[in-house]
Amino acid sequence: MSSPHAARDSSRTNVAIIGMGTVGAGVARLLIDHGDRTARHAGKTIWLSKAVVRDLNKPRGIDLPAGVLTDSIDEVLNDPEIDVVVQLIGGLSPARETMLRAMEAGKDIVTANKALLAEHGGELFTRARELGRSIAFEAAVAGGVPIVANISQCLSANQILSMEGILNGTSNFIVSQMDEKGAGYEQTVKLAQELGYAEADPAMDVDGTDAAQKLAILSHLAFGATVDWRDIPRSGIDRLDPVDLQYASQLGYRIKLLAAARMIDGELELSVAPTLVRKGTPMAEVRDAYNAIRVVGDAVGPVFYHGLGAGQMPTASAVVADIIDTAVGRTPITFQTLEYFSKDRPARTVQRDVAKLRGRYYLRLHVSNHPGTLAKIASVLAEHNISIASVIQHEECSDEAVAAGKTSDEKFVPLVIMTHEASEGAASEATQAIAALKSVDGRAVRMPVRT
Amino acid sequence: MSSPHAARDSSRTNVAIIGMGTVGAGVARLLIDHGDRTARHAGKTIWLSKAVVRDLNKPRGIDLPAGVLTDSIDEVLNDPEIDVVVQLIGGLSPARETMLRAMEAGKDIVTANKALLAEHGGELFTRARELGRSIAFEAAVAGGVPIVANISQCLSANQILSMEGILNGTSNFIVSQMDEKGAGYEQTVKLAQELGYAEADPAMDVDGTDAAQKLAILSHLAFGATVDWRDIPRSGIDRLDPVDLQYASQLGYRIKLLAAARMIDGELELSVAPTLVRKGTPMAEVRDAYNAIRVVGDAVGPVFYHGLGAGQMPTASAVVADIIDTAVGRTPITFQTLEYFSKDRPARTVQRDVAKLRGRYYLRLHVSNHPGTLAKIASVLAEHNISIASVIQHEECSDEAVAAGKTSDEKFVPLVIMTHEASEGAASEATQAIAALKSVDGRAVRMPVRT
Repeated sequence: MSSPHAARDSSRTNVAIIGMGTVGAGVARLLIDHGDRTARHAGKTIWLSKAVVRDLNKPRGIDLPAGVLTDSIDEVLNDPEIDVVVQLIGGLSPARETMLRAMEAGKDIVTANKALLAEHGGELFTRARELGRSIAFEAAVAGGVPIVANISQCLSANQILSMEGILNGTSNFIVSQMDEKGAGYEQTVKLAQELGYAEADPAMDVDGTDAAQKLAILSHLAFGATVDWRDIPRSGIDRLDPVDLQYASQLGYRIKLLAAARMIDGELELSVAPTLVRKGTPMAEVRDAYNAIRVVGDAVGPVFYHGLGAGQMPTASAVVADIIDTAVGRTPITFQTLEYFSKDRPARTVQRDVAKLRGRYYLRLHVSNHPGTLAKIASVLAEHNISIASVIQHEECSDEAVAAGKTSDEKFVPLVIMTHEASEGAASEATQAIAALKSVDGRAVRMPVRT
Repeated sequence: MSSPHAARDSSRTNVAIIGMGTVGAGVARLLIDHGDRTARHAGKTIWLSKAVVRDLNKPRGIDLPAGVLTDSIDEVLNDPEIDVVVQLIGGLSPARETMLRAMEAGKDIVTANKALLAEHGGELFTRARELGRSIAFEAAVAGGVPIVANISQCLSANQILSMEGILNGTSNFIVSQMDEKGAGYEQTVKLAQELGYAEADPAMDVDGTDAAQKLAILSHLAFGATVDWRDIPRSGIDRLDPVDLQYASQLGYRIKLLAAARMIDGELELSVAPTLVRKGTPMAEVRDAYNAIRVVGDAVGPVFYHGLGAGQMPTASAVVADIIDTAVGRTPITFQTLEYFSKDRPARTVQRDVAKLRGRYYLRLHVSNHPGTLAKIASVLAEHNISIASVIQHEECSDEAVAAGKTSDEKFVPLVIMTHEASEGAASEATQAIAALKSVDGRAVRMPVRT
């Protein structure tokens, strides 16, 4: 098993970084400034040989030793002394081609590129195995929170039953700020951009894509599922109305962008959605740009992880741990044993039909203040076998007030309903039927609720 | 590096369990009932060959295949096909001798015996290295929470700056119950015993010994410190008065038995004590028999772990993960690289003098309701350079009320003071000086406060 990695047994492991953005500079800093530390954990020297960039003249906030910085990737690929390539180019291309070329040149890979794994994981991991190389990717999910190693190794005695998490720090920062400051979405996105928590175009973060990609990767590790992230039902926080944060709070909940995976009857239920989470639970109290993951194993029970899911040094912490694991030979063992993303290993689980998902729901409707509106809505829910757990209806729109002859304008007012458990199919149909009622305007908001 | 473990490369790893108590039965259940799972994670079969017990006739709630159960340890030691010995005998002797004999017979060790490691770690680990064997001990600290692997591997890019945790589930169960139900200590211990959360003699759990032993082990992993657990200043929850839980709550805190380690000026500050933790922080909300650990690394920032710190299956989860790591070869690499508890590797840090510890303090005093008592106490604190952050003094004993001529008996009433930051030395001296005041009775309660 260890034969292809015999070269790792030398007294020094040479590393090249490709892509010196924020994370690359952080990795370089740890390797250069803290060589004693990495040597202690690796039992040998971890040496930064090369850092490949496109523009040699761009300032990077770090002094690299002479000869390290280069704009030629061939200097890395053609150097047989370089053992590990840290692939930090974002996007799909040329990241994919670069990774393939590096593996063909005999390098083991450490990467933080989650989109690349979600898209081309099968191809890249299969090729790595053919070539006797390894790919480490702790930094691809949840930044500094070592969830990949924890699921792959630490919890390996368990069948994972469920997993839910706040996997996108940008969204969590925005939602927390909106919740705490009562500010609107657009205004909060601007603040997040000013503080460096959101990119100039935060679309992939706020629309749930990033969380879905991470959930697809974690689902593969935890459940052996082969999921295209596009098949995960997902909604983001980009249409979140502050008023729902207020109603949720009145009901004892906070809203979080939750990525969730759950085994039910041998099928895997997956979703990414703004979700009501009960206040006082650890997940509800995750603030700012933090990430958190709650994993339930059949032996260990629930284990909760909380830490910084992004940022220069937290991500660099994960990358350097992967470099050390690769240098000492742990990653090659794990990589070969678990056969992640192997085309030869059939998926162990299938994704559950969206309509079969079950849970509680939060509904916010705009209803006319005519008598009998609540009765009609309650009837539609009852027809779909959905029972009501709680209702918030302000006095000016209560059926009773109207029935009692109190004056009120013909206008639409909000009605908030929390249901008991129902299927996604029934909830979706009922919501459509309610929205079609004459006394209800079309803008229905529906979110799942965690208990 | 892998040469002494060449035998592990066969297609099957044979395991023997020594000591079939609760945890042993849990480990056997995972190995027997879930062989597919362990095989998937190990890339080969993990086979339970033997389970050694003292009394063959004692019921254990698990059906073992014929030939597995034995009362002869020699059947394990003399069987060259057995690769891994899971040492689950408690206490120091014969656990120590058994472990040494097993290693001398060529077996790698997995153990959950924290007291043995805290006491004889140096001897056992040095002998293992001499023999080319490994010792895995994830289950020795925090049960199902994989903190050993996380500190040893996942956070290896970091200098750990601090670490604090709830490491004793029995104590946390008792304190949480007292807090939530308002019940007394003795009564709650009985409940904990009935529910299986406390042993018949819970002394080592409730007096801080168990937490100090775990903290000593974690401090070695995280800081390279060689600490005798007896040198860790510690107090337990066995003298906790419910009234302090109530005052803490009024001040916005909960009381938790906190084990803490912190690097300050190159020295390691260590303590185990009932500590006021601010409500709403994840640590304050750890309930029942759960454990939690917050680790701060200089790159990753704070990472928080929460899970079940004891119990049959959570502990078995950690043991079986160690068996898999040993079978695939990861543990031998980690064990040899990190040289834990090596007599050849000098301690990297020294323990900080207790008197130099700094923090905020909670003080509860019994004071006479004479005029000027608070003034005298405040003077003593000021003389020791300690400033007051908040005070709880009920009306019937306020100096003002007495000064205003209201009647009151000559009796002692409680006075609660929360200080700003001070040194342990100053706080200790000031508390003694205050307790010696004529208007204060001797029973002063003092606890540290986390912010």
